Amino acid sequence: DRVIYELKPTGRKHTPLLDNYNMNGPKRGHAVIINNESFHWTTGMNKRVGTDVDAQNLKRTFTKLGFKVHKHKDTSCIDLLEILQDMAAKDHTGSDCFVCAILSHGDDGCVYGTDGIIKIRKLVDMFRGDICPSLAGKPKIFIFQACRGTKHEIPVPPAQDVVDGPMADEDDEFHTVVVDSGPTPTLPSASDFLFCYSVAEGYYSHRDTLYGSWYVQDFTSVMNSLVFKEGSESVDFLDVLTAVHRRVSERRVERTMSQSALGKKQMPCFLSMLTKKLYFSKKAK
Amino acid sequence: DRVIYELKPTGRKHTPLLDNYNMNGPKRGHAVIINNESFHWTTGMNKRVGTDVDAQNLKRTFTKLGFKVHKHKDTSCIDLLEILQDMAAKDHTGSDCFVCAILSHGDDGCVYGTDGIIKIRKLVDMFRGDICPSLAGKPKIFIFQACRGTKHEIPVPPAQDVVDGPMADEDDEFHTVVVDSGPTPTLPSASDFLFCYSVAEGYYSHRDTLYGSWYVQDFTSVMNSLVFKEGSESVDFLDVLTAVHRRVSERRVERTMSQSALGKKQMPCFLSMLTKKLYFSKKAK
Amino acid sequence: DRVIYELKPTGRKHTPLLDNYNMNGPKRGHAVIINNESFHWTTGMNKRVGTDVDAQNLKRTFTKLGFKVHKHKDTSCIDLLEILQDMAAKDHTGSDCFVCAILSHGDDGCVYGTDGIIKIRKLVDMFRGDICPSLAGKPKIFIFQACRGTKHEIPVPPAQDVVDGPMADEDDEFHTVVVDSGPTPTLPSASDFLFCYSVAEGYYSHRDTLYGSWYVQDFTSVMNSLVFKEGSESVDFLDVLTAVHRRVSERRVERTMSQSALGKKQMPCFLSMLTKKLYFSKKAK
Amino acid sequence: DRVIYELKPTGRKHTPLLDNYNMNGPKRGHAVIINNESFHWTTGMNKRVGTDVDAQNLKRTFTKLGFKVHKHKDTSCIDLLEILQDMAAKDHTGSDCFVCAILSHGDDGCVYGTDGIIKIRKLVDMFRGDICPSLAGKPKIFIFQACRGTKHEIPVPPAQDVVDGPMADEDDEFHTVVVDSGPTPTLPSASDFLFCYSVAEGYYSHRDTLYGSWYVQDFTSVMNSLVFKEGSESVDFLDVLTAVHRRVSERRVERTMSQSALGKKQMPCFLSMLTKKLYFSKKAK
Ligand SMILES: [Zn+2]
Ligand SMILES: [Zn+2]
Ligand SMILES: [Zn+2]
Ligand SMILES: [Zn+2]
Repeated sequence: DRVIYELKPTGRKHTPLLDNYNMNGPKRGHAVIINNESFHWTTGMNKRVGTDVDAQNLKRTFTKLGFKVHKHKDTSCIDLLEILQDMAAKDHTGSDCFVCAILSHGDDGCVYGTDGIIKIRKLVDMFRGDICPSLAGKPKIFIFQACRGTKHEIPVPPAQDVVDGPMADEDDEFHTVVVDSGPTPTLPSASDFLFCYSVAEGYYSHRDTLYGSWYVQDFTSVMNSLVFKEGSESVDFLDVLTAVHRRVSERRVERTMSQSALGKKQMPCFLSMLTKKLYFSKKAK
Repeated sequence: DRVIYELKPTGRKHTPLLDNYNMNGPKRGHAVIINNESFHWTTGMNKRVGTDVDAQNLKRTFTKLGFKVHKHKDTSCIDLLEILQDMAAKDHTGSDCFVCAILSHGDDGCVYGTDGIIKIRKLVDMFRGDICPSLAGKPKIFIFQACRGTKHEIPVPPAQDVVDGPMADEDDEFHTVVVDSGPTPTLPSASDFLFCYSVAEGYYSHRDTLYGSWYVQDFTSVMNSLVFKEGSESVDFLDVLTAVHRRVSERRVERTMSQSALGKKQMPCFLSMLTKKLYFSKKAK
Repeated sequence: DRVIYELKPTGRKHTPLLDNYNMNGPKRGHAVIINNESFHWTTGMNKRVGTDVDAQNLKRTFTKLGFKVHKHKDTSCIDLLEILQDMAAKDHTGSDCFVCAILSHGDDGCVYGTDGIIKIRKLVDMFRGDICPSLAGKPKIFIFQACRGTKHEIPVPPAQDVVDGPMADEDDEFHTVVVDSGPTPTLPSASDFLFCYSVAEGYYSHRDTLYGSWYVQDFTSVMNSLVFKEGSESVDFLDVLTAVHRRVSERRVERTMSQSALGKKQMPCFLSMLTKKLYFSKKAK
Repeated sequence: DRVIYELKPTGRKHTPLLDNYNMNGPKRGHAVIINNESFHWTTGMNKRVGTDVDAQNLKRTFTKLGFKVHKHKDTSCIDLLEILQDMAAKDHTGSDCFVCAILSHGDDGCVYGTDGIIKIRKLVDMFRGDICPSLAGKPKIFIFQACRGTKHEIPVPPAQDVVDGPMADEDDEFHTVVVDSGPTPTLPSASDFLFCYSVAEGYYSHRDTLYGSWYVQDFTSVMNSLVFKEGSESVDFLDVLTAVHRRVSERRVERTMSQSALGKKQMPCFLSMLTKKLYFSKKAK
């Protein structure tokens, strides 16, 4: 069990030094998953083969945590903004927190809808405490599995392999790894936001066409081990992310259609404006 | 003491899910403090009154943690680069980690030497594991107490108040608060780096001319309470930073020479590329 | 009449020092006008009242110059990209040059479709000589009447005033001036491109809700005086733009709904990668 | 309905449509040449072999035009700012115009002093009409021969070849061509400024170690042919720049130490905020 830090009583009135966000509200809260796989030709963006696996993994994980999950496939810019606007307009009273995961292409401070780019700042600002008061003081978690769209290899394997192939062993021939250089994680920021990036500036983001992205794979696996395992108690979410960093940073490309991808490393990062400790456990019914 | 998470044995060989950085080496390591107060007139930058208090606070804190502290006042760009180059060229074998704190003006991805600007990326890249191998796999912590230089109020109080005045009560007339909008925390990044910012994008950074910056004040106070207090054990450094976020975000400007500063809030942030948990305790002799 | 510069014959073979683009081909070429007035609510962008007047003015001007004009109202991002893609895919053999005018909101290197933003670089690159060979070596002119979208006043006057009002005197009550700070004119660039901006960085763009934007008003008027007037010969297009700079820079806001707009100046600019002199005259039939 | 644009004579007083800057004042004005060849090791910048030739060429050209030329070699950031500050503080009454040429390394909106970077905006703003009133309404010309510093080949030939070698034929072995990708020409801007860039975004800048940069070579040669030749009259300076664009864009790398430089093209550009036509002729005594 965790150490409890106390402040000596002083003349000044202080909040306790290390408080936890309240994660025992009547509801866990909403989780939105934006899963963009196919893009209009005018964008020049490739199909993101493997993203459905990511979306499914995240849906399972957040459902197990007690979130009400909203999964959206192939959203245009207007769709995406309307979905998040609707979400920000909801009454989150009684919710512990809010999660938004965006699986798409990315580019310098932007993510792709199926028909173009949106500034991340625009998406995030809707959930600031002053604009969405029922989330004020509650953790707002954004997860970006996004790769820079302009330098894509041609990674799409024959469709039948992906769609119809048997669940492949790790050494089979039916999947490949896509490597992209990552977008810059510049982000608007405000109290109680946490931004989780699959890839830090100057590194590469990898997506396995069969198993999904390295980042979501390892996030899912770490959550399973730390939070959902028999006998687990509540787990510090920053520890989860740190463990994901470790896992992803130890991977290396073993198979890819692009020679230049071999040996390219991936390094995730997170940016925290949290003001309390954030623990997740299985939600009590 | 802390929970230890284990992975079920699988076919794949994994490192443990949640490891700690080894903080029990023969030496804690080096800590560099760059304390820039006065700037050449060509830069157009004001004197950063109060920064000496910050530098002294950080020196005490890092000394107590067992660091060998190197404090430098009013460094030019070349000085600053040479100081860090010398540091990166040292043999850090046997050190637990490395710390660099920069107290200066800042501007879009840059910090100020006394005679101009330097890209933060340039400073940080010297310490990447591939370039400075004796720090590879060890935590590299950068702390930025930097405010955007171009929108400064004229805050300098009479010199004797700052230098000679008695230790002032919080309601005295001898100090004031400087408010700046913050620089964008875009950062180069690599495995095992941790970047701690006094202020996130879109928020304001505050420096009390008598007590030093809010961020360093609260960092010092939280370290004292959590790490240095009688009976404290080792403390997760991300918890320290989270507590600092809390403290700083609860402050508000009560006195300033600039009307427009009243009510301006400050929100710090940190960006983590850490791959293990980072605990600090008093260094065993 | 203009000076003709000659090079002394040398060992090296040179093109003449000052050549003119050939503007006497069988066709003048295509001119595209993108006229975006109304934007989807998710963009947060105001209606650009007055832009129809700009579009009509530009259409008349380019028609008089002999261009085949394609005017498009309220184009989405996909529409806009498809329109320009179609244009770039045309065979421009026999055309003198190409013009594209975009009347919309803008933002840091982007322009707005009705549903979101597009990078200007993406629009422009389609017309590079290596990608659109039938335009290689010919002038490619882009005109941007775009204002930064995020700081709009609320300028929309009652609809009937704009639509039905009698030809208003300059002192009437039926129009107003909208002031925006301008976007940064960073542009991709390549041989034989010319980019004409209504507003340079750090200045303000103005649109009269009744007469259209200052820039297009003055462009139209200068073209009328220099090119279309009885007895005019061919006119250096950079002289036209310089005259427009003069006119626009001499204007000042006399009436606006926003107090802060009073006295705000506008400064247009152009960026030239032209390699020959560009003359326009009335196209010989 | 609206829009009747003819230039009827109106009550409003207009300046003439196409005026020339007055270039017949008692003095031509000051021209500053910043010639940075060697850089402090902390900058990581290579020696810019060949830049002395550029500086000498520009000095001759501007002297012939009647400028009082101030040439400075290897200026630190503070030196550079002080030199320009002194220049901006001069009384330019009676001067026709002002020129500043900077020969150095460059990087995203910055140029290098010998010890670090300076924002171009900072240099330019000193000469704005509101800050330097004796230059208000007069052309202010900035020339940047600057290449991005971070991707330099290792181009330095043996010193004796450069210094002592006989005037080499174009096929000799004593010079080589350095190729860099160019900086982004984003610029602050204000009325009556003209910014001349050796290289536009996305293109490459070339410097011959024996003859100097392509851009300054061609600028010098075009000025000689158009302005200084027996019998020349006054010449439109934008025509000069257009001719330089032509010359530079027709060059190709024939010899270089870096294979990847072969065939790399260079495309200069200029950005005009001029409000009148700018003619140069030999200054009448
Ligand atoms: Zn991508
Ligand atoms: Zn500052
Ligand atoms: Zn606008
Ligand atoms: Zn260079």
